[in-house]
Amino acid sequence: MKNLLVGQSGGPTAVINASLWGVLHEAALYPEQIGRVYGMRNGIEGFLKGHFIDLGASLDAGARERLKYTPGSFLGSCRFRLPEDLDAPVYQELLRLLEAQDIGYFLYIGGNDSMDTVCKLSAYAARTGSSIRFVGIPKTIDNDLVLTDHTPGFGSAAKFVATAVREIGIDASVYEAPSATIVEIMGRHAGWLTAASALARKFPGDNPALIYLPEIPFDQEAFLGRLQEVLAVRRNAVVCVSEGLRDRDGNFLCEYAASSSTDQFGHKQLSGCGRYLAQLVKERLGIKTRTVEFNVSQRCAAQEQSLTDLSEAIDAGAFGVRSAVAGKTGCMVTFSRNTPYSISYGLADVSLVCNQEKTVPREWISLDGSDVTPALASYILPLIQGSPSIPMKDGMPDFVYLQP
Amino acid sequence: MKNLLVGQSGGPTAVINASLWGVLHEAALYPEQIGRVYGMRNGIEGFLKGHFIDLGASLDAGARERLKYTPGSFLGSCRFRLPEDLDAPVYQELLRLLEAQDIGYFLYIGGNDSMDTVCKLSAYAARTGSSIRFVGIPKTIDNDLVLTDHTPGFGSAAKFVATAVREIGIDASVYEAPSATIVEIMGRHAGWLTAASALARKFPGDNPALIYLPEIPFDQEAFLGRLQEVLAVRRNAVVCVSEGLRDRDGNFLCEYAASSSTDQFGHKQLSGCGRYLAQLVKERLGIKTRTVEFNVSQRCAAQEQSLTDLSEAIDAGAFGVRSAVAGKTGCMVTFSRNTPYSISYGLADVSLVCNQEKTVPREWISLDGSDVTPALASYILPLIQGSPSIPMKDGMPDFVYLQP
Repeated sequence: MKNLLVGQSGGPTAVINASLWGVLHEAALYPEQIGRVYGMRNGIEGFLKGHFIDLGASLDAGARERLKYTPGSFLGSCRFRLPEDLDAPVYQELLRLLEAQDIGYFLYIGGNDSMDTVCKLSAYAARTGSSIRFVGIPKTIDNDLVLTDHTPGFGSAAKFVATAVREIGIDASVYEAPSATIVEIMGRHAGWLTAASALARKFPGDNPALIYLPEIPFDQEAFLGRLQEVLAVRRNAVVCVSEGLRDRDGNFLCEYAASSSTDQFGHKQLSGCGRYLAQLVKERLGIKTRTVEFNVSQRCAAQEQSLTDLSEAIDAGAFGVRSAVAGKTGCMVTFSRNTPYSISYGLADVSLVCNQEKTVPREWISLDGSDVTPALASYILPLIQGSPSIPMKDGMPDFVYLQP
Repeated sequence: MKNLLVGQSGGPTAVINASLWGVLHEAALYPEQIGRVYGMRNGIEGFLKGHFIDLGASLDAGARERLKYTPGSFLGSCRFRLPEDLDAPVYQELLRLLEAQDIGYFLYIGGNDSMDTVCKLSAYAARTGSSIRFVGIPKTIDNDLVLTDHTPGFGSAAKFVATAVREIGIDASVYEAPSATIVEIMGRHAGWLTAASALARKFPGDNPALIYLPEIPFDQEAFLGRLQEVLAVRRNAVVCVSEGLRDRDGNFLCEYAASSSTDQFGHKQLSGCGRYLAQLVKERLGIKTRTVEFNVSQRCAAQEQSLTDLSEAIDAGAFGVRSAVAGKTGCMVTFSRNTPYSISYGLADVSLVCNQEKTVPREWISLDGSDVTPALASYILPLIQGSPSIPMKDGMPDFVYLQP
């Protein structure tokens, strides 16, 4: 019997704790293989400082049930990249810490960077002959992991985006004066989440009128031309854009406005392409404009959780535990889609997943780059189905979270 | 028998169409007094251009039911102020148009400016001996109408704000690095909606850490001092601010940024007060900051509708019809609160309501102006209770709205 250690890493989602719940629930089904279940605080970074909790002791039955619906990373998160060189002392230190807690199963819920951690740790463990199994459980609202049909977290974020854009379209249409509302949606390199805004449409010609993904170089003049065509037909246009839009020279639109900074991974810190475009439209077309940035709400709004997404997030966590118990390591849980819609769970070699990025295929974007195709909307539609019943208390969602 | 004309005016809310539904439902109960029910398109401004629809013919039973849950102004809205001088020709023209459609009941769903319209029209009608009855049905997320305990639309907006702030607090707390998240909430002069963020707290010391309303002059240095105190206790602080914060000289904070920066088009950048404060904190305290602006979602998010608010919005519409049938005119529907919580509906002279503004009383704001008192939270709490079951289709809320 060995103990299990689970962590969460990278940006949170509305259902990342559902995967944690799946891990807890499944682990209890293996009393002969799994002893205690520990949770790293703030991922591998916190664990290196000795921060972890006994999840069995920390959550009573009621709290555990509410955890399933609570957005954000219950255990805390980190953005921490292990060194490329497996001879770096941090690996030896990590293995020592894992062995000190008698860990046999290491489950890490996260996106690209987190899978890089799983990849490196499993490679190091293999080299040292350690029997600890390292399994990745996918999570990202960006839906940009390869070798899986989609990722937990995306369906709920997509449902939030589609719902909010439908509401914004209604709100924008109440006045007679012509207007353009630019909605800026998360997605630096992959436009999956912005594409979900297409599901807001109820009839042909409904808003959003235009949708721009980062996969296609953005042409300002072509955009203004298309917008004028739209405004000739309808007074109030909603335009959905990915935060990571770039021009044909590769410059981010948000950098036109000058202020930009980089995070510790060297990623550009983006914000502002929506604002830039609203200003451009106001200037050139002389109409009223508004910018909406969904910001973190698109990854933490529990009211728009997709039941499908929530269930799959749970299943992904559970499948990760089963795989580790079965002796698998150095792998990530993957989704294959069946017809009619259901999911078969599988595993991929995590070294083939990490540091890759799945963008929207060209054939799912309209020829002129100002919209997505019906095939893309059909791909997303099953992922937003169903609404869980969120536990409520005093008119508010009754989430469970640790006091600081 | 006379016809009824109903309109919507001013900014939309999540439940303004519930009041419209209440008007439709109640009007059908008076077949001997009320003939057709017409809806002005885009309020009084559209009606002056001859734009109105026969609501009985426009909505089948299914659409009418879905209307109850649809945010935004189904009939369209306007921001139109009638002249002060009742001798202006527009009054004669309006009366002619009303008489041409054999209108006996004029119901206007709106806020301050809309009540001004009801006031002037009823005064003009009285002067000319017209028997048309003019009744106002209150609506505003700002909750700033006088002579009523609260206004329909506020409860749902408050529930949205409280829920989203709780989610943002969870999201902001996942990383170890200290941070401040500034959430900017609607409210130029009245802080009711920003105050609702206090309901996000689950335990003492929970986020939001600080709440600033426009009723109290904002002191930058005092704010930075309070924030440092907060950050000494908790890593991640959420600060909720009203968009209309002003300093002791009466200058809007959002204008500070405008005076210092210009955009790439050479225009003054009118950034929100949230952005200004985030930049200030980053500059002075050197920590990571983020700004969240709820924007129009706070007035159009159906998923966070309060069932209490929805029911009261319906009742307000119905009470308006009953009052008009009973011969009342020049009045607005008002709410009185009973203990335990329930609402008694009444009427106020609309001339005492329009162009007034109810702000948050000083005793409901903490002494140093950085929080609200428990009494204010207790006032808001009953207004966010219950969640209606929104009709869904294909994973999305099945709203009803007119094609452009």
